[in-house]
Amino acid sequence: ADNVTVLEGDAAELTCHLHGYDGSIVVIQNPARQTLFFNGTRALKDERFQLLEFSRRRLRVRLSPARLEDEGGYSCQLYGEDTRHQSGALTVLGEGHGDSGGQRGRW
Amino acid sequence: ADNVTVLEGDAAELTCHLHGYDGSIVVIQNPARQTLFFNGTRALKDERFQLLEFSRRRLRVRLSPARLEDEGGYSCQLYGEDTRHQSGALTVLGEGHGDSGGQRGRW
Repeated sequence: ADNVTVLEGDAAELTCHLHGYDGSIVVIQNPARQTLFFNGTRALKDERFQLLEFSRRRLRVRLSPARLEDEGGYSCQLYGEDTRHQSGALTVLGEGHGDSGGQRGRW
Repeated sequence: ADNVTVLEGDAAELTCHLHGYDGSIVVIQNPARQTLFFNGTRALKDERFQLLEFSRRRLRVRLSPARLEDEGGYSCQLYGEDTRHQSGALTVLGEGHGDSGGQRGRW
């Protein structure tokens, strides 16, 4: 799993790769185990998370602006006949860590 | 949060109380952070988990037969304007612990 690092206030983009996606249910969770999206349907009422893409190839979520408390492990779960799981860490740097700019990453 | 203890092979019933349920999204997760049900829709393909009731008052899930590996913390999340969370532990006793019989519990 790849990780993403962004500066506080910047945007983070997280990508879940759906290799050979068969239409199974896909769930995205934040570090607090809360469901962000369930098959493209928003659960957590936090408009900072936006679903950019949900195709057969991948699912992309944009978080903007990222806050320090968003830091931690995000997971993407596919509920097919076998349950598959991808996870990755988001690191949010506070001010004083220099201008790192936004980065893209994949789980 | 209340906890539930059952003997291996018995049925466990978990109840999530939806006080003043306003139609928000409700998610049930097992100890592995996997989604069992999203607003009554099954995610994890494990037929041992059955949704007994999803009303304005409560959500009840029956697990049968319970296995040792089902043990751990289950959570019920309500995604309204504020996110609410209930959790409870399921304990599954292996053979040799006596006949405790099934128990009902609430999160």
